[in-house]
Amino acid sequence: MMIVMQEGASEEQIARVIEQIERAGAKAHPSRGEFVTVIGAIGDDRELVASLTLEGLPGVEKVLPILKPFKLVSREFRRDDAVVEVGGRRIGGGSFGLIAGPCTVETRAQTLASARACKEAGATHLRGGAFKPRTSPYAFQGLEDEGLKLLDEARRETGLPIVTEVMEPDKVDLVAEHADILQIGARNVQNFSLLKRVGDAGKPVLLKRGMATTIQEWLLSAEYVLARGNPNVILCERGIRTFEASTRYTLDLNAVPVVKKLSHLPVVVDPSHGTGHWELVESMAMAAVAAGADGLIIEVHPRPEEALSDGPQSLKPERFAALMERVRRIARAMDRDL
Amino acid sequence: MMIVMQEGASEEQIARVIEQIERAGAKAHPSRGEFVTVIGAIGDDRELVASLTLEGLPGVEKVLPILKPFKLVSREFRRDDAVVEVGGRRIGGGSFGLIAGPCTVETRAQTLASARACKEAGATHLRGGAFKPRTSPYAFQGLEDEGLKLLDEARRETGLPIVTEVMEPDKVDLVAEHADILQIGARNVQNFSLLKRVGDAGKPVLLKRGMATTIQEWLLSAEYVLARGNPNVILCERGIRTFEASTRYTLDLNAVPVVKKLSHLPVVVDPSHGTGHWELVESMAMAAVAAGADGLIIEVHPRPEEALSDGPQSLKPERFAALMERVRRIARAMDRDL
Amino acid sequence: MMIVMQEGASEEQIARVIEQIERAGAKAHPSRGEFVTVIGAIGDDRELVASLTLEGLPGVEKVLPILKPFKLVSREFRRDDAVVEVGGRRIGGGSFGLIAGPCTVETRAQTLASARACKEAGATHLRGGAFKPRTSPYAFQGLEDEGLKLLDEARRETGLPIVTEVMEPDKVDLVAEHADILQIGARNVQNFSLLKRVGDAGKPVLLKRGMATTIQEWLLSAEYVLARGNPNVILCERGIRTFEASTRYTLDLNAVPVVKKLSHLPVVVDPSHGTGHWELVESMAMAAVAAGADGLIIEVHPRPEEALSDGPQSLKPERFAALMERVRRIARAMDRDL
Amino acid sequence: MMIVMQEGASEEQIARVIEQIERAGAKAHPSRGEFVTVIGAIGDDRELVASLTLEGLPGVEKVLPILKPFKLVSREFRRDDAVVEVGGRRIGGGSFGLIAGPCTVETRAQTLASARACKEAGATHLRGGAFKPRTSPYAFQGLEDEGLKLLDEARRETGLPIVTEVMEPDKVDLVAEHADILQIGARNVQNFSLLKRVGDAGKPVLLKRGMATTIQEWLLSAEYVLARGNPNVILCERGIRTFEASTRYTLDLNAVPVVKKLSHLPVVVDPSHGTGHWELVESMAMAAVAAGADGLIIEVHPRPEEALSDGPQSLKPERFAALMERVRRIARAMDRDL
Repeated sequence: MMIVMQEGASEEQIARVIEQIERAGAKAHPSRGEFVTVIGAIGDDRELVASLTLEGLPGVEKVLPILKPFKLVSREFRRDDAVVEVGGRRIGGGSFGLIAGPCTVETRAQTLASARACKEAGATHLRGGAFKPRTSPYAFQGLEDEGLKLLDEARRETGLPIVTEVMEPDKVDLVAEHADILQIGARNVQNFSLLKRVGDAGKPVLLKRGMATTIQEWLLSAEYVLARGNPNVILCERGIRTFEASTRYTLDLNAVPVVKKLSHLPVVVDPSHGTGHWELVESMAMAAVAAGADGLIIEVHPRPEEALSDGPQSLKPERFAALMERVRRIARAMDRDL
Repeated sequence: MMIVMQEGASEEQIARVIEQIERAGAKAHPSRGEFVTVIGAIGDDRELVASLTLEGLPGVEKVLPILKPFKLVSREFRRDDAVVEVGGRRIGGGSFGLIAGPCTVETRAQTLASARACKEAGATHLRGGAFKPRTSPYAFQGLEDEGLKLLDEARRETGLPIVTEVMEPDKVDLVAEHADILQIGARNVQNFSLLKRVGDAGKPVLLKRGMATTIQEWLLSAEYVLARGNPNVILCERGIRTFEASTRYTLDLNAVPVVKKLSHLPVVVDPSHGTGHWELVESMAMAAVAAGADGLIIEVHPRPEEALSDGPQSLKPERFAALMERVRRIARAMDRDL
Repeated sequence: MMIVMQEGASEEQIARVIEQIERAGAKAHPSRGEFVTVIGAIGDDRELVASLTLEGLPGVEKVLPILKPFKLVSREFRRDDAVVEVGGRRIGGGSFGLIAGPCTVETRAQTLASARACKEAGATHLRGGAFKPRTSPYAFQGLEDEGLKLLDEARRETGLPIVTEVMEPDKVDLVAEHADILQIGARNVQNFSLLKRVGDAGKPVLLKRGMATTIQEWLLSAEYVLARGNPNVILCERGIRTFEASTRYTLDLNAVPVVKKLSHLPVVVDPSHGTGHWELVESMAMAAVAAGADGLIIEVHPRPEEALSDGPQSLKPERFAALMERVRRIARAMDRDL
Repeated sequence: MMIVMQEGASEEQIARVIEQIERAGAKAHPSRGEFVTVIGAIGDDRELVASLTLEGLPGVEKVLPILKPFKLVSREFRRDDAVVEVGGRRIGGGSFGLIAGPCTVETRAQTLASARACKEAGATHLRGGAFKPRTSPYAFQGLEDEGLKLLDEARRETGLPIVTEVMEPDKVDLVAEHADILQIGARNVQNFSLLKRVGDAGKPVLLKRGMATTIQEWLLSAEYVLARGNPNVILCERGIRTFEASTRYTLDLNAVPVVKKLSHLPVVVDPSHGTGHWELVESMAMAAVAAGADGLIIEVHPRPEEALSDGPQSLKPERFAALMERVRRIARAMDRDL
């Protein structure tokens, strides 16, 4: 950690910072420049940043952390790529996951029709929401327990592992009985009670990035799960909020190579939520593969115009099948296994 | 709701949109212009937007909602200002709330010292966190149950009502036993399970705006609470995330007059979290009062440099007292009751 | 254009809006719903929006434009893809442009070495700045006229057409004597005097998106050039400003399919400026191709660590050559001509 | 400047960074921690950052500048507040400027009526645009030379100094003949050619912040003007671009105390452009004064509904007069001179 003092900071102010650093068990290395003094604090940055509050001190201009604040999720901690395997399907380490299905589990017919169509088109995992986070209290909130049973049936019929969202700590055990991968939605990326519980539940976790979550914060949320002894986290980029209104969110594909550099965790991309328009899904899905993503998560609905949520961003099954074909060509051009 | 068709949309495509509107129980009014056709759907917008999925249909350019998506929180629903009263202290309707205290309840001595100092300086409510949402799993997470008891003691000693955060649905009943106002933090503004539970709990709620929450979404989160029969919601602007890095967040004071126009709910401002620097708190606190806010929530710590969280944005008691004096002058210049 | 009246707007207020619409030569179609009245204004939206100021009127809730505000750049105006051809090199309509070179023209040796390396690796156009927009007045501002001459020499030696930036209206004629394509930088995307001048100059224009420019505003800036009779505009996505700090900007690849839908103009992508880190350039370059971009613009420098600007985002020639090989594989997988 | 090496950086990589620092004439102070090595470069940061490109070097994690990149505009360079005085009217150093007038000079009658009304209500300066930056090429672009003459007449009649925008370097001399203060618009905040020319012209400059300009970049743009020998710069906050759509921009009042801390230059606030709605102007104007702004710039139009630009954000003269009265009360409560 580096503490930059203000121009004209007094000797007393410098001494006070040094005293605080040493009281926290670290070593202080002041370096007096022509204009300003910089004090290095040598010790475990993660602990120091957590325990020291130097920014409020008189004479302190700013505090610059040196080490990254996360540990278990970092590339330094584990050099090779992590792989999340469930039901014989691998995501990460060169293996590509194609998670597809409807936004919401609505009816038995819709769920099974979607599931079959996704399977036929080559999906490796089935997605579908039984508990739905909805901006408005007046919108459909999901079939809940009934929806989980329909997902069980869809798995029996297709053999595809199920990815479904859990929204509150109390429901983690219930959802974990039905799901193969627990999804944490964008609005819950910093719901720390929930993160701890899915960390304890032991099931693989698909952790969506929040709409205003920095990559560093997102990795720290993953660190919550790993710190509970659960190493099976898949990160999911799904768009951030910016000023641009022609897409629902701004799908941030830059996050893919950035995460690959910082972490060993697999990262998949959700172009359906990320763009909000089915016409843009295909281009951004292909771009995600080319950027190095470990998988895609795509909304597929047999009749998007009748969907109870997110119809405008859902693909019809035949369009999804065509997209899969194009995605495979990109993957082959990159010597990827799909 | 207005549906704008693409240039060159076919008669068949137009007919299909009309059919869907009528099937949803609304009336369709097509209006054919020189370039495009626009179809008005006359009915309850909130229901229509929830039940119709027209954006995915062939030939549809865009769908424009006409009515606001929230109802109970709206200025149209209730013309006069709502007032949230607890322990004889009112916020809203011309009454100003001064909520002050440490970010985190750390020790008995720190809590009681803060509480007394805030009381003396004129605070009307005491804030302090027993459960703390922390970006890093390695940071101090709060004293939890022990902290709640210290807050009880602080109330007994000062008579000030207590505002404290609750982070998970399961803890709502516990926290409600100790708190006078339940705080929902910025990261939980769209934690819908939690919103429903605090709606049911009946205690007043202080609902912070999320860092990427639009004002409309924020009001819809408040609508979740009111829809459960709990009208006592105080909105709290605490800064949004933008590209500007010289402040921790961008405190969005524009939200104050915008909320006043759209809703009858009181709105308070948190310049401590909003700016992240104690040197900026005073200016932004005064600006918030002048913008028409119904209150302030300010971090005060007897020794900010030793605070376990958010020290850099905490005021010392004497500085807080001076700020209160300046705030009162602004309030008087606006004929406000403080 | 649709005018949505406030709930409870009076008949007199409605009549006044209708009167204004008709005075502007358009037809007004009021439609009275259960809650609100909506008034359609049928006429040329572009003219109406420009000439009518209804939002300030009493009783008006909001004004919703129906037609797009741009015309000449729109896909409706021209259905097939525009192609910008210069020196026998085509960009757009299935042809891919690989614009490469140093950020800044620094010395004769550096310029010619870069040019030869780019040519060998398969670049189709050479880029390099003689006039440099620099955030700080103390930073190197470019070789100016001398730089233009070095670019002439580089073209003579390689045969590659030259793309270089022009920063002020007065220099357009001078730069146009040396450049094959005039670049308008991100900071000048709404420098309307400059846009008019490059529109008049007749040379092809590469128009970078500004860091806070919506896609609609960007297309309107292109419309300025086309409105002067110059149809040869190439759009260039180079990253927008968001809260995310791990990349210099957030390269917004979503803009590629959005522009393709709205406009017939070719769109290229600049992953060097967009990410600011050479390690991210390769992934994002491949993603851009897969997203459907018509070309790339990439910074290549023989010795990035000695570059006078933007070294951290420049590729060494051998790395650029390897990238080109990978880009070609992606392009082939998409049946693109490269 | 601090250079943080990657974990596991080799001795050779460290040596290479040290070599580059010393070649640039600075001293290198490596400090080897348990995990990483940090190298301090002691010298003039502004020159070092400009001349060294270390971020691209193998083994380098990141480069952290220590000193601020601006100099002449900084509070360290000049401790007391700068005052910009023109026509006997002072802005800064405790004196408050009330710049009012129509967005655009449209007709003689409208200009003179506005001018008189602003004068009567207590405005200290008159604003009005003769050259207008318009997003669409089809929108009214201003009366240009004719507009400048009308502004001359308005000054003769009211005695108020004139603030008007200049958009291109070539027009600076012309506009400077008519204006008392040259306005640089938000879209030109990084039009460096223009900044240099207004620096040379010697007239006071009102420099608007761009919609995606950080405070640091804005101060560097002001530095361009001061570096040409012109110290008379007034900064103007006018809203930044964020995700929030209920206001036209997000007026960032935090910028006021931040600028006051970093710089000695006066800063005024434009709530008309910043919010885009006349109903919000009053609240944000009062908030700006309370935040410590040195002045306001407000759009006033005798008939907003007929304005050729920005009618929705313009106040009628009587409303402006009432606002001035309320602003004065706030100012008095802050012991400000107005």
